[in-house]
Amino acid sequence: MSELIHPELSDIISAHERIKPYIHHTPVLTSGQMNSIFNADLYFKCENLQKVGAFKARGASNAISLLSEDEIRKGVVTHSSGNHAAALAYAAGLRGARAYIVMPENSPKVKQRAVASYGGEISFCTPTLQAREETATKIIEDKGAIFIHSYGNFNVICGQGTSALELITDHPDLDIVVSPVGGGGLLSGTVTAIKGIKPSVQVFGAEPAGADDTYRSFNSGEYIPYHKPDSIADGLLTTLSRLTFGIIRKQVDNILLTSEASIIECMRLVWERMKIIIEPSSAVALAVIKENPEAFRGRKVGVIVSGGNVDFEKFGFSWQP
Amino acid sequence: MSELIHPELSDIISAHERIKPYIHHTPVLTSGQMNSIFNADLYFKCENLQKVGAFKARGASNAISLLSEDEIRKGVVTHSSGNHAAALAYAAGLRGARAYIVMPENSPKVKQRAVASYGGEISFCTPTLQAREETATKIIEDKGAIFIHSYGNFNVICGQGTSALELITDHPDLDIVVSPVGGGGLLSGTVTAIKGIKPSVQVFGAEPAGADDTYRSFNSGEYIPYHKPDSIADGLLTTLSRLTFGIIRKQVDNILLTSEASIIECMRLVWERMKIIIEPSSAVALAVIKENPEAFRGRKVGVIVSGGNVDFEKFGFSWQP
Repeated sequence: MSELIHPELSDIISAHERIKPYIHHTPVLTSGQMNSIFNADLYFKCENLQKVGAFKARGASNAISLLSEDEIRKGVVTHSSGNHAAALAYAAGLRGARAYIVMPENSPKVKQRAVASYGGEISFCTPTLQAREETATKIIEDKGAIFIHSYGNFNVICGQGTSALELITDHPDLDIVVSPVGGGGLLSGTVTAIKGIKPSVQVFGAEPAGADDTYRSFNSGEYIPYHKPDSIADGLLTTLSRLTFGIIRKQVDNILLTSEASIIECMRLVWERMKIIIEPSSAVALAVIKENPEAFRGRKVGVIVSGGNVDFEKFGFSWQP
Repeated sequence: MSELIHPELSDIISAHERIKPYIHHTPVLTSGQMNSIFNADLYFKCENLQKVGAFKARGASNAISLLSEDEIRKGVVTHSSGNHAAALAYAAGLRGARAYIVMPENSPKVKQRAVASYGGEISFCTPTLQAREETATKIIEDKGAIFIHSYGNFNVICGQGTSALELITDHPDLDIVVSPVGGGGLLSGTVTAIKGIKPSVQVFGAEPAGADDTYRSFNSGEYIPYHKPDSIADGLLTTLSRLTFGIIRKQVDNILLTSEASIIECMRLVWERMKIIIEPSSAVALAVIKENPEAFRGRKVGVIVSGGNVDFEKFGFSWQP
């Protein structure tokens, strides 16, 4: 197998120019209280305030911007139960194109509503990877639609890296950047942007101990997919692709793990102290800082807050006082 | 009784210069989705992202900055079960001074913790206005501490007006500004700043129908305190002071009411679509826009988001998936 081509800083800079009209340059928030609690200067890059509530708008916009008129005319397709589905529908809509979204029939109603609200056309399937891929393949064959993978896609990775590009440009004196890692698209883009601009900045991936395929692949040097992940961080249950594994293995400084209890505790801290909604997957980045205090003490740390799409009812929220 | 002196724009500009080092210049957020839902261009002035999670940090900082060294040395005192208590403790701490906070013994634990976390010294009393005032008076006599009322205070009102001053400076083309009204400190400061800078901007107060003392006082022209308010908007249960009534009656364009159901619905919309935590009292400003669509259609509307201090458990939140 020939080696997969890794993106470079210039690809991410080009992506940023390309998608600027379609995304928010998200704010970086700081909190004196949080700095006291974590004994570090934390810079929260707020992709929860991004279009569709997650960084995924960046990668989807970049991939779709690069399609020709002939390609986009037949629509795009993906299988996803999460933020990438909504992002693809959003980005396709910007070009007046159709987005076919394959979702497991048991996916949360809140996510189905999000996809539909951006005009995505949902095809339900049984909740197995095989059924998802078969359903998507059928749409590709029937419609001629272009498949856009949520992280194993060069252009998607370049788009995801634009968040870290903004972060390091706005705050060039960071010592460390921490990004959650699920399929690895965000972490791959992040490390490419950060190391490209300032190689001395450490880049860490943050992963739930219950879904530690990146940790095990990174440390063994072998690509080890994970078939039964279990974590409240529902955005991080996907497994690395060979492309993201290669980028991460080559450039990332370390993968740090966290317990489920720390994820919940850190999510709650951000909600209560910073008044922003972050999803459990985003709290993972903060949770590894809590669990590895010696690595971060007194340092300037960029934290990629990946998204804010929370199923409130899952937490018992009744919307009644 | 001699007429109470109303603040002017120059007082608010001076307050802003004075408190700048101690407060955040809060961001103004926009959302295409929210604009579609409400048929207006909404500009959310995010005091939920302010120090102590509420605009109250502005007024307390201004009032405390103006105390002499002799005055501040003996500390400050207030009675409050809400955000003003935490704000006063925060602002006193900046001058190394003591803040004595009288709280009803049944006030929520989350608010007690907030006051304590800023170094406030809590004295509990039975939950009646009489007990609160007596306990505060005893502290004034025993300690020589200065009483800082949460809204019936000229310098507090000037501080609260600095939020609207930032809003209209950052977005000079607004047509309307909506602010919640409880005791009237925020609305008084807001209308003074906005009308001082651009008299053509309409300023509306937003009030729950279950706590409509401002609505009734405004429309009758007589000061009508409300003794049994009932609303989920716990920051708006206070009644106008004579000072805030005078300012509001003279300058505000109208007071609009909302139902409890709209308050909850609008709070949920902001959490889900904008990914920021706003408290029920802040959702009141958006709820009156929902209930009076004809007054806002197609207009540029500034919405003062007063705070983000929510008692999550009260809504059934379990912090367990």
